[in-house]
Amino acid sequence: MISIDYSNMMEEYIGSKGLSNLSINNISPQIEKAYKMIANREWKQLEFIDLLSQDTAEIKKAGRYIKKSADNFLLLGIGGSALGPRAILEALSPFHNLKKRPRVFIYDNVDPRTLKNLLSIIDLKKTFINVISKSGSTAETAASFLILWDKMKRILGKDASKRFVITTDPEKGSLRKIANDEKILTLPVPPNVGGRYSVLSPVGLLTAEVTGIDCNELLRGASDIKSICLNNDVYKNPALLFATLLFLMDKEKNRHINVMVPYMDSLKFLSEWFCQLWAESLGKENKGLTPYPSLGTTDQHSQLQLWIEGPPDKVIFFIRVDDFGTDIKIPAVFKNIEGYNYLSGHTLKELINSEQEATELALTKAGRPNFTITVPQINAYYLGQLFFFFEMATAFAGALLEVNPFDQPGVEEGKNLTYGMMGKKGFEEKKKEVDEYRKNKGKWRI
Amino acid sequence: MISIDYSNMMEEYIGSKGLSNLSINNISPQIEKAYKMIANREWKQLEFIDLLSQDTAEIKKAGRYIKKSADNFLLLGIGGSALGPRAILEALSPFHNLKKRPRVFIYDNVDPRTLKNLLSIIDLKKTFINVISKSGSTAETAASFLILWDKMKRILGKDASKRFVITTDPEKGSLRKIANDEKILTLPVPPNVGGRYSVLSPVGLLTAEVTGIDCNELLRGASDIKSICLNNDVYKNPALLFATLLFLMDKEKNRHINVMVPYMDSLKFLSEWFCQLWAESLGKENKGLTPYPSLGTTDQHSQLQLWIEGPPDKVIFFIRVDDFGTDIKIPAVFKNIEGYNYLSGHTLKELINSEQEATELALTKAGRPNFTITVPQINAYYLGQLFFFFEMATAFAGALLEVNPFDQPGVEEGKNLTYGMMGKKGFEEKKKEVDEYRKNKGKWRI
Repeated sequence: MISIDYSNMMEEYIGSKGLSNLSINNISPQIEKAYKMIANREWKQLEFIDLLSQDTAEIKKAGRYIKKSADNFLLLGIGGSALGPRAILEALSPFHNLKKRPRVFIYDNVDPRTLKNLLSIIDLKKTFINVISKSGSTAETAASFLILWDKMKRILGKDASKRFVITTDPEKGSLRKIANDEKILTLPVPPNVGGRYSVLSPVGLLTAEVTGIDCNELLRGASDIKSICLNNDVYKNPALLFATLLFLMDKEKNRHINVMVPYMDSLKFLSEWFCQLWAESLGKENKGLTPYPSLGTTDQHSQLQLWIEGPPDKVIFFIRVDDFGTDIKIPAVFKNIEGYNYLSGHTLKELINSEQEATELALTKAGRPNFTITVPQINAYYLGQLFFFFEMATAFAGALLEVNPFDQPGVEEGKNLTYGMMGKKGFEEKKKEVDEYRKNKGKWRI
Repeated sequence: MISIDYSNMMEEYIGSKGLSNLSINNISPQIEKAYKMIANREWKQLEFIDLLSQDTAEIKKAGRYIKKSADNFLLLGIGGSALGPRAILEALSPFHNLKKRPRVFIYDNVDPRTLKNLLSIIDLKKTFINVISKSGSTAETAASFLILWDKMKRILGKDASKRFVITTDPEKGSLRKIANDEKILTLPVPPNVGGRYSVLSPVGLLTAEVTGIDCNELLRGASDIKSICLNNDVYKNPALLFATLLFLMDKEKNRHINVMVPYMDSLKFLSEWFCQLWAESLGKENKGLTPYPSLGTTDQHSQLQLWIEGPPDKVIFFIRVDDFGTDIKIPAVFKNIEGYNYLSGHTLKELINSEQEATELALTKAGRPNFTITVPQINAYYLGQLFFFFEMATAFAGALLEVNPFDQPGVEEGKNLTYGMMGKKGFEEKKKEVDEYRKNKGKWRI
């Protein structure tokens, strides 16, 4: 099981910069209320919890077919539809495209240069495309689907439909309609599961299967931590504890930036996945915590200076991996060279984990709160635990902050203005607003 | 030339959340003082400015040799030694390893799994290795150099030395000594140029050349913006203005998080390069600004909700690219499908740039300060401008904040504790400290 050591969040360890039992106990009514909101399913979107018992037969079947018949697997999706699959791919199959088939490409943005490059290196005839959009009409995904559909049609004619799988709402939306009209294979995103909580739905699981990862192992890991993350005792529930600690550090100590630092290259995209989950779920009503994606040891040479001597506005949390599944010994060469000789005989794992512990201690000595999540090893089972743990922690944090962790009202205006500019019907007023804005802007320019 | 539109930072555009001429004029003595510190070379490390007139013949020669003789170019370095080269590689040669030779790999961390994977896909016989460390004894780089040196020696014997180039101080340090002893080709990092200001030295320029990019173009771009970035009028100097605006937003409005959002995939690593520069240069004495790496449109589906409705602690700045060098038309298919039909006939560039402008306007309407840096196109010339502009802006910001933008005293303790754990001579006390820490930690654990 994953574990959390939060000693360095407590005043016993870091003095007045830390929290105490008392500060946690003082908000026990709030913690209890938050707990009940989640346990009693206050929001219907908590249905993501039920994903753990889904039947994966259809996903596995699609995965087998794609693995057998494609050299390239191209995913079109953005936000949760891209970040979850990418976190799985990078954590469990690093260097995938240089080692395995089908190669996996995730096109999430609408950068024409990226797509041009992509099209120059993949053979569309041997490509299978997964279009993912819960709503079915995400602008970026719609645009790239139109382009790829048109190209595939030109190349494969009627057979094009057989080279797509659409992951969307089981009933509603434009993608569902297109799938029905064109007889395209589909996989469902359950109606109440939001994009950023969808990694353990077909959204993430199909990429896992295509990549050669048993998606049931992700679910098994998540299932094994489920009851623990639903314990009503904050001291026994890591998800509730995680949320409570960061909530209190914001409220009492004005530390509102939460830096996630895994010490393993392939977890960099787990950080990015978490950052969407945490930012979009909690950032509303002028409240929220700012998640910061980082990576050790790399960012010791980039961000550490700021964490340790900059403004006291951050909490750092490490993800430490016990077993890398491999290790490399540092050989005894240049034995007389200062700065090299002491390394011989040690291993890279010793070095990376020593650096993690050294950074933890250095922060602690500087009175900078931090805590460490330890993961026995990175495989599908433990990655499943991490996904579910962070999702539950985010839901609890929303309840503690008294915001709805499942909506994102703030992004609508930007979408509407884009619709206006792109000439979508019904958004003519937005177009005018942009025209007006353009006319007046640019007075301050250099 | 790159340009900045900062209208949406001003109260004329965003009301009381904005700055005014008055607030800028009120600190004109500070601005003048900061300007003079930089113009008069208060810190010797401002020598990075002189890199623009360096002779690149040796770099070009090494680049030609490597291009001719290697299938793989492996860079060992961390922090500035990796972030600069990676920013160049990704911005100017996206998808490089799937399209061109030599493939370029940057191994910055000491993750054993990554190195194992890397060694399984590259043939060391056909690999050229660039070891970069200014000091010559960075622990991560030293460890990976020891491993690679040992392997190359076993494969190539005496010829191993001919497959390395070491980029380090021209006189001092352990790497210099090794290069002399083993007769390895070297390139210099000028003694007064710090790692994070070294991208326009051989640190970044060799990777440029190996990747097929004319390093002189990077320098030409930087040179063309140099005199503008040394103008003493804040309203005419984009670097001084950038620093002043973000300094004032922190000081007067408590907005201390600076989010960098390029709308082009391949500039993601320019963000990471900037974040090291800004964080490590300014984060000291409990002061500093927190840079946040982001990407449009991707992060509209991840972070935008937090920017627009979360705590009012951020300034967002966009990098908008006028010309992507290519574009893709969105075809007229699914013309009767709601959410798809409006896109037909537009292009991806129109969409991505409309989304940038829509996001800018949505933030502005929500009273969230933002500004836009426009770059005519992304090539070596303009990337050189951006590098130099951000370096100068960082130096000015340090002077305004009254911190030394060229040191990083906060990272020493972590290094010393690591030395202790790894058994380096002279750090026995640090080892004891860690042992003591381990004995006492872990009381709060779940």
